[in-house]
Amino acid sequence: MKKGLKIVTIGGGSSYTPELMEGLINRYHELPVREIWLVDIHDGEEKLKIVGALAKRMWAATQYPVEVHLTLDRRVALKDADFVTTQFRVGLLEARIKDERIPLSHGMLGQETNGAGGIFKAFRTIPVMKQIIEDMQDLCPNAWLINFTNPSGIITETVIKQFGWEKCIGLCNVPEISMIKEPAKIGCKREDLQYRFAGLNHFHWHKVFDKDGHDVTGSLLEHINDKDGGTPKNIYQADFPVDLLQTMNLLPCGYHRYYFLKKEMLQHSIDEFRAGETRAEQVKSVENALFDLYRDTKLHEKPKELEKRGGAYYSDVACECINAIYNNKRQPMVVSTVNCGSISCLPADAIVEVTSLISAKGAEPLAWGEMKSHERGWLQMMKAMEECTIEAAIKGDYGVAYEAFNLNPLVENGAVAEKVLNELLVAHEKYLPQFANIIANIKAKGVYPQDKTVQDLLAKGK
Amino acid sequence: MKKGLKIVTIGGGSSYTPELMEGLINRYHELPVREIWLVDIHDGEEKLKIVGALAKRMWAATQYPVEVHLTLDRRVALKDADFVTTQFRVGLLEARIKDERIPLSHGMLGQETNGAGGIFKAFRTIPVMKQIIEDMQDLCPNAWLINFTNPSGIITETVIKQFGWEKCIGLCNVPEISMIKEPAKIGCKREDLQYRFAGLNHFHWHKVFDKDGHDVTGSLLEHINDKDGGTPKNIYQADFPVDLLQTMNLLPCGYHRYYFLKKEMLQHSIDEFRAGETRAEQVKSVENALFDLYRDTKLHEKPKELEKRGGAYYSDVACECINAIYNNKRQPMVVSTVNCGSISCLPADAIVEVTSLISAKGAEPLAWGEMKSHERGWLQMMKAMEECTIEAAIKGDYGVAYEAFNLNPLVENGAVAEKVLNELLVAHEKYLPQFANIIANIKAKGVYPQDKTVQDLLAKGK
Amino acid sequence: MKKGLKIVTIGGGSSYTPELMEGLINRYHELPVREIWLVDIHDGEEKLKIVGALAKRMWAATQYPVEVHLTLDRRVALKDADFVTTQFRVGLLEARIKDERIPLSHGMLGQETNGAGGIFKAFRTIPVMKQIIEDMQDLCPNAWLINFTNPSGIITETVIKQFGWEKCIGLCNVPEISMIKEPAKIGCKREDLQYRFAGLNHFHWHKVFDKDGHDVTGSLLEHINDKDGGTPKNIYQADFPVDLLQTMNLLPCGYHRYYFLKKEMLQHSIDEFRAGETRAEQVKSVENALFDLYRDTKLHEKPKELEKRGGAYYSDVACECINAIYNNKRQPMVVSTVNCGSISCLPADAIVEVTSLISAKGAEPLAWGEMKSHERGWLQMMKAMEECTIEAAIKGDYGVAYEAFNLNPLVENGAVAEKVLNELLVAHEKYLPQFANIIANIKAKGVYPQDKTVQDLLAKGK
Amino acid sequence: MKKGLKIVTIGGGSSYTPELMEGLINRYHELPVREIWLVDIHDGEEKLKIVGALAKRMWAATQYPVEVHLTLDRRVALKDADFVTTQFRVGLLEARIKDERIPLSHGMLGQETNGAGGIFKAFRTIPVMKQIIEDMQDLCPNAWLINFTNPSGIITETVIKQFGWEKCIGLCNVPEISMIKEPAKIGCKREDLQYRFAGLNHFHWHKVFDKDGHDVTGSLLEHINDKDGGTPKNIYQADFPVDLLQTMNLLPCGYHRYYFLKKEMLQHSIDEFRAGETRAEQVKSVENALFDLYRDTKLHEKPKELEKRGGAYYSDVACECINAIYNNKRQPMVVSTVNCGSISCLPADAIVEVTSLISAKGAEPLAWGEMKSHERGWLQMMKAMEECTIEAAIKGDYGVAYEAFNLNPLVENGAVAEKVLNELLVAHEKYLPQFANIIANIKAKGVYPQDKTVQDLLAKGK
Repeated sequence: MKKGLKIVTIGGGSSYTPELMEGLINRYHELPVREIWLVDIHDGEEKLKIVGALAKRMWAATQYPVEVHLTLDRRVALKDADFVTTQFRVGLLEARIKDERIPLSHGMLGQETNGAGGIFKAFRTIPVMKQIIEDMQDLCPNAWLINFTNPSGIITETVIKQFGWEKCIGLCNVPEISMIKEPAKIGCKREDLQYRFAGLNHFHWHKVFDKDGHDVTGSLLEHINDKDGGTPKNIYQADFPVDLLQTMNLLPCGYHRYYFLKKEMLQHSIDEFRAGETRAEQVKSVENALFDLYRDTKLHEKPKELEKRGGAYYSDVACECINAIYNNKRQPMVVSTVNCGSISCLPADAIVEVTSLISAKGAEPLAWGEMKSHERGWLQMMKAMEECTIEAAIKGDYGVAYEAFNLNPLVENGAVAEKVLNELLVAHEKYLPQFANIIANIKAKGVYPQDKTVQDLLAKGK
Repeated sequence: MKKGLKIVTIGGGSSYTPELMEGLINRYHELPVREIWLVDIHDGEEKLKIVGALAKRMWAATQYPVEVHLTLDRRVALKDADFVTTQFRVGLLEARIKDERIPLSHGMLGQETNGAGGIFKAFRTIPVMKQIIEDMQDLCPNAWLINFTNPSGIITETVIKQFGWEKCIGLCNVPEISMIKEPAKIGCKREDLQYRFAGLNHFHWHKVFDKDGHDVTGSLLEHINDKDGGTPKNIYQADFPVDLLQTMNLLPCGYHRYYFLKKEMLQHSIDEFRAGETRAEQVKSVENALFDLYRDTKLHEKPKELEKRGGAYYSDVACECINAIYNNKRQPMVVSTVNCGSISCLPADAIVEVTSLISAKGAEPLAWGEMKSHERGWLQMMKAMEECTIEAAIKGDYGVAYEAFNLNPLVENGAVAEKVLNELLVAHEKYLPQFANIIANIKAKGVYPQDKTVQDLLAKGK
Repeated sequence: MKKGLKIVTIGGGSSYTPELMEGLINRYHELPVREIWLVDIHDGEEKLKIVGALAKRMWAATQYPVEVHLTLDRRVALKDADFVTTQFRVGLLEARIKDERIPLSHGMLGQETNGAGGIFKAFRTIPVMKQIIEDMQDLCPNAWLINFTNPSGIITETVIKQFGWEKCIGLCNVPEISMIKEPAKIGCKREDLQYRFAGLNHFHWHKVFDKDGHDVTGSLLEHINDKDGGTPKNIYQADFPVDLLQTMNLLPCGYHRYYFLKKEMLQHSIDEFRAGETRAEQVKSVENALFDLYRDTKLHEKPKELEKRGGAYYSDVACECINAIYNNKRQPMVVSTVNCGSISCLPADAIVEVTSLISAKGAEPLAWGEMKSHERGWLQMMKAMEECTIEAAIKGDYGVAYEAFNLNPLVENGAVAEKVLNELLVAHEKYLPQFANIIANIKAKGVYPQDKTVQDLLAKGK
Repeated sequence: MKKGLKIVTIGGGSSYTPELMEGLINRYHELPVREIWLVDIHDGEEKLKIVGALAKRMWAATQYPVEVHLTLDRRVALKDADFVTTQFRVGLLEARIKDERIPLSHGMLGQETNGAGGIFKAFRTIPVMKQIIEDMQDLCPNAWLINFTNPSGIITETVIKQFGWEKCIGLCNVPEISMIKEPAKIGCKREDLQYRFAGLNHFHWHKVFDKDGHDVTGSLLEHINDKDGGTPKNIYQADFPVDLLQTMNLLPCGYHRYYFLKKEMLQHSIDEFRAGETRAEQVKSVENALFDLYRDTKLHEKPKELEKRGGAYYSDVACECINAIYNNKRQPMVVSTVNCGSISCLPADAIVEVTSLISAKGAEPLAWGEMKSHERGWLQMMKAMEECTIEAAIKGDYGVAYEAFNLNPLVENGAVAEKVLNELLVAHEKYLPQFANIIANIKAKGVYPQDKTVQDLLAKGK
């Protein structure tokens, strides 16, 4: 780290990269970056070139002496890295289309990080993450891994607990959005309020206190169904049941809608599905438009349009985290890290998403204490589901994958669960080497995805 | 206990009473009963007279000097009782019809002890059980309470943990049916096999070992979808997913079908609902037929037809339990009792259903140890749901009732959950004094059950 | 709090009061104190007058508009208080002499907050604290209680867990001394190092990290036996076993010497005891000298000599804590607070001493995670001993007091334990109303303290 | 197992072997033994021959067709064994003399299975046990290991948790002696009482209930200090503090005297030590006398004199356990087995000593539930000490060995602890290959046992 930092971004061709560059540029005065390596795979080469060129223009406009490298060779990039950020999507948006459409074609919620789709995103990502960690052990054994590849909590648990890479912090933009949007609702500024988050990634709650230590969670709950309310753009904003939330006296995250308003969320997704407009399909259009902007060689900064993506603030959170580590700030942030008892009803070595102090030694979670019955039941069940997902992903075990499905509240239990499991395995075959034999057996029985859009993707070899 | 036992049965007018009498007659040589008091309420007086007369004829046929008393005055009956059994149903079968039809009318599983209906059965039963315990503290402070009023686990947890009556054991016929039916499937006798059950009432698993200590759970799982397979008569026998069960290597109870085959079970229930033939409605016919038999003054024994009811063996299990306590047998039985760590992922003071030794000092559970992720997640969530149910029932708290609904996997989450909650509150108003104010508010908003059959019952004041 | 703070100090006649005044004066620019009430009992009236006059002179010298009140009427003082600090010593130094000399007269460690003496300090303090809490519930229900009456952890657990006063934080100067003294040993400044403490009051460990997040605990351990090393003045500085500490890789607190070097510490105490110079007796001289200084009406500031007392920095920590609460600083401090899972091997509702963020809502502990076997065993045993102490103190239960003795590693088990227990009960009779009947029985058997000094104190009615 | 059982006894030259033979002979009608292999090491060859010849005569006198084999080749014996019992003593009685005399020479309790001596017995035994398990994995992978080598709980934990051999049950005669001796004290027979044990090997408590389920623990406690009271012969019977025990309402085991009466037990041991008569030295005489008896070729049965040894009933318990496994008896016995939550304050995978049902599938512990503070603190600390002992024994780690010493209540903390640790390492060098380098370093510093008797043993190469 002596002469300046080397930062490596796996999945560097992502449309979010300009936000990451902006974040680093804004912090350059205290975060002396020297080299940025944007890494991507062959299928992402074109996007890497476009966004990489914009990244270079952005830095050039600053006069800061930072080199931006673009490469398809991960090992070259990782050599002596100080920080590695991961924001890749195995199978690109086409895989997300399958994660959404296959469950929906059987009447279940299809979603990128929740339900059957989220489980399969983990199945595809974990084998790749394993290779990345092996490379890091070899090439940059002291580097920090800042993960924001989804499902962020599950991936972080796999990296730390299964692969043994302790210098890993998982990030998400959802808490950040809440802390940006909510204060104004009760006439406060962010610095006037004290936030405490606890739970799992995409399944956490928070409490808020004012300057005098009074709990203002109830006041914020009165605004929970206001529009523009702190929920990421990608989530349909059905109305939360206020009686329930007031009894809990906790603010939910936007993703709780899938669980607490399952019926409405499913109906909305089915409507989109029938219109050929699931979220992935919408995002594809947004991305195409973004890359059209990025191609403009006169563009030297992050375009405003990027904020419309669900992942806004993601990269900003990542830069803030890198900064807090590098400068030993002991700054409160909401991250996925080792529980250490902070949520006492979950295993001490589980990964949880909690308010933590971020410093040079990593994340120190603040202890939350005991959850009440209702929240405890949900968290314990969701964590068990995550554990099954990870075990199935590593072992390529069909029965354990079924267990993950069986526990997941967004999967309908019954014969249809197995159908969806089988179709997803077949549809994602290319990215699931650990399930190769199982998929061969399923295909031998003639199982094939029934959704036409998915069939078309498969026909094109995507 | 000196001169012989006094046994009191609350809900004595139940159609199961002849089985209870038969069980006591068969054990008379080691269980010296002196007095049996059958207690019921005014609405059950006619049934009490019919079944009470049969009970008297049954004992008369034996020459044993046992007095059978019939009464509507619970306090007279409880005075100096040695054993009290509870098998009452608050609101009779009409309440069960509501528990089934209201959820089904909104597309959710309606069931007596699971889902929304099970939660409401607890809401109705707990206030009555509170009065019984108060009477027992006053009149028979050393008596054992043998509960088989459903939901048996929840009621037992309330009696022991909330009302402080430690001498209580909860019973269920489901494990007994498994142990009677399964051995033959693998060419064994019951005494050749060693059974271990663990979980919650109506949500437990078991493992089985042969004489050499080998685990034969897998062999039994091959027969899990055989018909006549150890599932109570009241549960539709959809096929279990075998891959899932083999991964778990645990035998489920019949009630797991509602959770693991939710879609099929719901469809079947909806079909029955549309035909005006939910389980409660079927049971009404069976009961009427049984009472016709009971009226026959030439009948001096339990008629075979009783075994067709879902509750077969219930009373036999109760007699066996009373016998094991009285004679200090240290006999293995499957009962609902204080966890004491036997299922280490659940609270030590929770009530669980586990293989236990029954002796004069009560139930001693055998330690099961750690559950794997999948089973742990289910159990922890279900126990949390039970805790919310009990808290709501005792406090009459709407928000906590909503929490119980929200956690319950058979309740569809969304606005419909609140609809079903409200309709059930209104429909059961007569038996829910703890929710009186809340129900008044709901009614003021014009909420009224939409199902025609339920409307008819309410019109008749039932 | 609107027009300025009202701070009440119970035990205001303590020699530490000038340090408290200095701390408040130094923070006046951000901590707008309006009234300070120094409360003491009749026996402490003279000291209260002397130190109270000095306090008034100190504030007068500042020109700040702060009123200092002296009173023996606790209720008048507590009315509408914002912060209450407790620094009283039931039975004064004479009681401490008994806590030290009686165990030593039987060959056991006699110490103020550890061993048999510490248990009896809790026995005397808890009944008084109960009255204070009752007064506070009545007169200042929103006040914060900042406790530094020893044994601070036990008293804080009693106040929060038994008496239900949640707005309580327990303080100790021991961690502060470590953080002041240690950094220079490895050529650092305090702000360069990041400290993490976890354990129980007077039984905690810490780890230290540098700016780059590297663990420098090992480097500090190399200096653990340096003199002037961060151990309070009152503790004899026998050499720690370095092999043991390096295996633990944790820095002990000074009080660990009593446990890890029991033999040497006992020998040193016996030497002092024989010389008629136990710590309490030394402190009496120091105190007399301090009060001689305080009497000097020309003195307007805290005299340097106060720092020689073992409790140096105590009051400074208290002021810092009040400041962090009042100004919502979310500042890391080491305090006794509710565990909330931060030390996962201890009960979630136990009081532990851990690095926490202090803000308007109180203390938020940082999660430490799992302890290794050795430290876990010690902590669990010590916490159990504390629980027995509290239970015995509240119930006045002899058997449970014996359990506390039996678990305490500084009490010799055998008939001698009972002798010391009995003598201490008799010696402290005046302050142990909850044990009145038991003490009467013991006295009836002729039990009387064997130590001459103690006998003299009792003869004088002290 | 088809044609009859092969039983292998490691340490077959033990003086207890005749009791084992008697036990097997008495159970022959239901336990069809075919071959018994008595295995010993070269140093034990003479004793093996003597006791082996007696064993042969005992079987010959029965006419049962059982072959008794004597061998120094463990692998030949283990081939296809059904049950392996371990009753060996690494270093023979000479090692025990060191375990007793070295601590005593420094004023600490010296004892075979407790304190410093017990820790070293584990250090010597664990490497040998590792080899035995490796042989068993190779030669008899389905055999049951019935361990009664001390410290039995620690060895059983090592075998199951560290070496992964799950088919292991640890035994001890202490609970058996209580159940034989106690009932008569309150005018009962053993079959009238129901015993529940829980704790750790040589550190367990029990409760007793009568036929009506009433707790009679208190009645038995009134006789706790009767002589001939259920304490093994090897333990000096100082009087327990009755007030303490009545508060606990638990019956202690005899070994609790070392902890609860440490001062008296230490004094008694020091007296014996000074007289050159520590327990090991007494046992040597008893053993010599026994072997003189065994040599008598006219002897065909277990001589009465054997019962005077502290280990009486040990072998009987072992035979009963083998019988319960072979005949799938589901019989209650007190054994060391995997906790599985039965003592909820200890790790679920720890080995505990609890009442369990013994059947073909092994031990099923009965759940005990939550311990009160006092007992919980003791147990947690002792278990942590055991964990340190095991870790140190496996890794040969000096610091962790020191941690075990530091936690052990019978080791005096201070510089003397290190002295005793070092002397014991040097004295047992021959049997501690895992500590070879460490011992070399210690010796290089000139450390040498100070006790003359130990010096003599070392001079003779023992």
